[in-house]
Amino acid sequence: MDIRKYLPILEWLPKYEKTQLKGDLSAGITVGIMLIPQGMAYAMLAGLEPIYGLYAVTIPLILYAIFGTSRQLAVGPVAMVSLLTAAGIGSLHPESTDQYLLYALTLAFLVGLIQFGMGVFKLGFVVNFLSHPVINGFTSAAAIIIGLSQIKHLFRINLPNSEHVQEMLVAIYQNIHETHMLTFAIGVGAILVIKYGKKIHSSLPTPLLAVALGIALVWGFDLSSQGVKIVGDVPSGLPTISFPSFDFGVWSTLIPIALTISLVGFAESFAVAKTIQAKHKNYKLDSNQELIALGIANFGAAFFRGFPVTGGFSRTAVNNQAGAKTTMASVISAVLIVLTLLFFTDLFYNLPSAILAAVVLVAVSGLIDLREPINLWKKDRSDFAMLIVTFLVTLTLGIETGILTGMVLSLGMVIYRASRPHMAQLGRVPGTHVFRNIKRFSNLEEKEEVLMVRIDGPIYFANVKYIKDKMDAWVERKRQKLTTVIINLESVPSVDSTGAHELHEWILSWRALGIDVCITATKGPVRDALNRWNLIECVGADHMFIDDQSALEFLDKKLAKEVQERYAPYATQCD
Amino acid sequence: MDIRKYLPILEWLPKYEKTQLKGDLSAGITVGIMLIPQGMAYAMLAGLEPIYGLYAVTIPLILYAIFGTSRQLAVGPVAMVSLLTAAGIGSLHPESTDQYLLYALTLAFLVGLIQFGMGVFKLGFVVNFLSHPVINGFTSAAAIIIGLSQIKHLFRINLPNSEHVQEMLVAIYQNIHETHMLTFAIGVGAILVIKYGKKIHSSLPTPLLAVALGIALVWGFDLSSQGVKIVGDVPSGLPTISFPSFDFGVWSTLIPIALTISLVGFAESFAVAKTIQAKHKNYKLDSNQELIALGIANFGAAFFRGFPVTGGFSRTAVNNQAGAKTTMASVISAVLIVLTLLFFTDLFYNLPSAILAAVVLVAVSGLIDLREPINLWKKDRSDFAMLIVTFLVTLTLGIETGILTGMVLSLGMVIYRASRPHMAQLGRVPGTHVFRNIKRFSNLEEKEEVLMVRIDGPIYFANVKYIKDKMDAWVERKRQKLTTVIINLESVPSVDSTGAHELHEWILSWRALGIDVCITATKGPVRDALNRWNLIECVGADHMFIDDQSALEFLDKKLAKEVQERYAPYATQCD
Repeated sequence: MDIRKYLPILEWLPKYEKTQLKGDLSAGITVGIMLIPQGMAYAMLAGLEPIYGLYAVTIPLILYAIFGTSRQLAVGPVAMVSLLTAAGIGSLHPESTDQYLLYALTLAFLVGLIQFGMGVFKLGFVVNFLSHPVINGFTSAAAIIIGLSQIKHLFRINLPNSEHVQEMLVAIYQNIHETHMLTFAIGVGAILVIKYGKKIHSSLPTPLLAVALGIALVWGFDLSSQGVKIVGDVPSGLPTISFPSFDFGVWSTLIPIALTISLVGFAESFAVAKTIQAKHKNYKLDSNQELIALGIANFGAAFFRGFPVTGGFSRTAVNNQAGAKTTMASVISAVLIVLTLLFFTDLFYNLPSAILAAVVLVAVSGLIDLREPINLWKKDRSDFAMLIVTFLVTLTLGIETGILTGMVLSLGMVIYRASRPHMAQLGRVPGTHVFRNIKRFSNLEEKEEVLMVRIDGPIYFANVKYIKDKMDAWVERKRQKLTTVIINLESVPSVDSTGAHELHEWILSWRALGIDVCITATKGPVRDALNRWNLIECVGADHMFIDDQSALEFLDKKLAKEVQERYAPYATQCD
Repeated sequence: MDIRKYLPILEWLPKYEKTQLKGDLSAGITVGIMLIPQGMAYAMLAGLEPIYGLYAVTIPLILYAIFGTSRQLAVGPVAMVSLLTAAGIGSLHPESTDQYLLYALTLAFLVGLIQFGMGVFKLGFVVNFLSHPVINGFTSAAAIIIGLSQIKHLFRINLPNSEHVQEMLVAIYQNIHETHMLTFAIGVGAILVIKYGKKIHSSLPTPLLAVALGIALVWGFDLSSQGVKIVGDVPSGLPTISFPSFDFGVWSTLIPIALTISLVGFAESFAVAKTIQAKHKNYKLDSNQELIALGIANFGAAFFRGFPVTGGFSRTAVNNQAGAKTTMASVISAVLIVLTLLFFTDLFYNLPSAILAAVVLVAVSGLIDLREPINLWKKDRSDFAMLIVTFLVTLTLGIETGILTGMVLSLGMVIYRASRPHMAQLGRVPGTHVFRNIKRFSNLEEKEEVLMVRIDGPIYFANVKYIKDKMDAWVERKRQKLTTVIINLESVPSVDSTGAHELHEWILSWRALGIDVCITATKGPVRDALNRWNLIECVGADHMFIDDQSALEFLDKKLAKEVQERYAPYATQCD
């Protein structure tokens, strides 16, 4: 056992170089500065006091630095997971902010447990079953829900918590007239600063700039007395130890959302880690170790007053651009947050909530993807349908139902495809020994007495009925003169017991109709299976051919021989 | 619309012939005689008075005769469905026999609703996902559970109702000393008569013979006063109209078992119908119409004091052997039962329950299949594992959990297979243009600079990771001198959007490593997809080849040209 597999930090720390430190320092500070407003904003999105967003990026960041296999991934609160946290806890109707926090810690703990468990049992492959269009539709819908959830801070109006777009839109329509214009102006100003400030200088930390401007404005003009909501007291000092709830009633309510967070969080995190890793290639990603690392980071969140975390898209990109070489950058970010917690929390007293809402809005606006649905509409209608259904279900029936629908759609698609293998009726390209699908090429040579079929996929219980039905239809169409069915198995990788049983039955039932069966181009494992199930004996060893051409030549010879035998008596008479 | 599709009776009734009536009459009487003891026995197995077994074969039989597409299928109570009925109703803890009956009617109604609905929505294909080994393991286990459930009647001992084998065995062990020897002797005698009576004459209705002998013995020697349990009063007359419960509390408890009965019942029925149809071929089976017909038959059971019914294995075989040509045979069986209900019910007063238990035991003993597991152990270990797991789970955790496990296993298998397409690294058969898997053939020609890969399956979201990981491992092994990857797509039937995205990324990442990519032997739909996703442009139209040989020749020429160009300056110098 190689300990470095489980503690990837040992891969790089022993040979850590000064040149690497330069990049890590620059990236660590950049991301740290970014984390201050984002952490607070996402905590607010999750329904918690802003300070918990800062707690959530101390211990978890350091834990990921030790256990994670990506060297640039920036772990912490992200928009989608924070929204899911709020939705999950909301359904438990907590009675106090203490209880709310307890549920948030419990959720982090459960997410940790699930991700750690999935990693240990090597279940990382599960996210493969969230297909690309499903993730895309889900993300766009979630971004819209997140955006709408920030309207109440931006307009300073009362809105109920909901994750159903139709309810939110109605509530916004009913309350929009109560908009607090000063708050709204600050929010819109912040959006402009964050979004277009980059144009002045690309490395300007615009969210922090908006935060600083907001604080200065509120402080300078005493805006809080004019109704602008501010963050208020932010306690100073490091997070103390906390414990999740071990009440199984709470667990059973939180587990569905914990599962959703685990999967969605890991999918987001691993996708960005893969993209960045592809640019470096000096280390390897391990999906199961990633799950373990994220699980441990979430344990850190659970025991140090955080809430569920994962690898974030935008911060990871910034971290990489700013030159991060190893997870030392994350450690430096964490140290920066620790210093903030120790010495600078007082500064945030006058921070307007609308500015944090602006941070969230700008972050999620980039997640709404219009190009991909248009692209899929043009190129792949069934993938487009998956995207749109997931999008609409998420938008109208909620996040959890959305991701579940997406998974069911994806798995349904796998099963649907698996149960309908591609099949082709073959004809010969004139003058060659090449056989092709008669549906895709015209002028192919076909014999009236012979049906040639190629099956493209394994023959097994889930698809035998489909295969038989299709062949039956083809046999029916040529019934008049048909004497032989040639089954080309070149694209069949395996035959299971049900497939073998059925194949046997097909052959017998065709023989009963006076139709002979030849099998061509079997692959090794298929030939083995046919042999095991005595199918070669049933077909007849002389009816098995290396390719379609040999089978046809055999049939021609057989026919010739039959003709010869029929005329043999007359031949002797002539002698 | 062809009305005969929905009323298959119209297919044969208008041209019904005298010769057909002869066969139908013989078969109808034979099955009718068989139905009297079996119906009563299965009613007892379902936890109902024996008379309900006779009710369940009147209207349902006639309804199936009208709507069913099989001409030999004998519908009625069967062992497995009766056992499931008892298990489902038991979990509702009915307080009286009236309530028990109400639940049985409700169950029949729900089964009818589910099967009818599945038929209308053309969901007949769902049973394909119960694989052969899963059905085999499930049936053997259910047969054992059914057999054990009859022990209490055969030994006349008290046993709790249970569907967990371990509990049943413990209870039997604890109570076996209370065996009523006279009852036991009658039961064993009946088993011998039913099982070996056939040896005297193959068309002897041995179950009815056992029933007659039992009645005669009890009546002649007044055995009921000596403790032999008898059936007692059997009310005479036809079943009156009944109504299922429409209490949604009852429905929600019964729905899981109703779903199980619908699927298992249909699977059993359709399997036997298919086997028999294959011997006749003068009509066609339609799985969705079969579901509709069985659904309507169950409605008949629900409204005429029956309980869930389906097409039975043994009775159908007997029906066919006895010469049934159309479902007229079923109508004749039903008429026979009606006559029995009207005139002969008094005869059954003295029938010992142990004889009905013997009827069930002999019927289910044939369902325990030892050959198939042994066969699978030798020929297909993964199918063997599915069989054994389903068998053990059904035996120890109950029928419902068993069938659910079987379905999950089957679907899991579909997904597992779908996510791991077969792949081969290719080499050239020396002296030919034929390329084969280097793992299955030795002495194949391979170039150090070229990796040739064939993917056997669609490229889509569920398997892209597996494909990439496998290719990466192969690339890694040849890394030293590798210049080109040739991907053979001859067995790839389709590429979805995720597959296209990934393929694009792979190509870019290999290029970044200095490895070129060629694609060969694409099928029509795949070429279309590659074109739509601009992948042909990305690979380069001159890097797409009709077959592997052309790709290799292209590479040779390219190499030669590169060499030529490198030496070109010297060449001119020489001139």
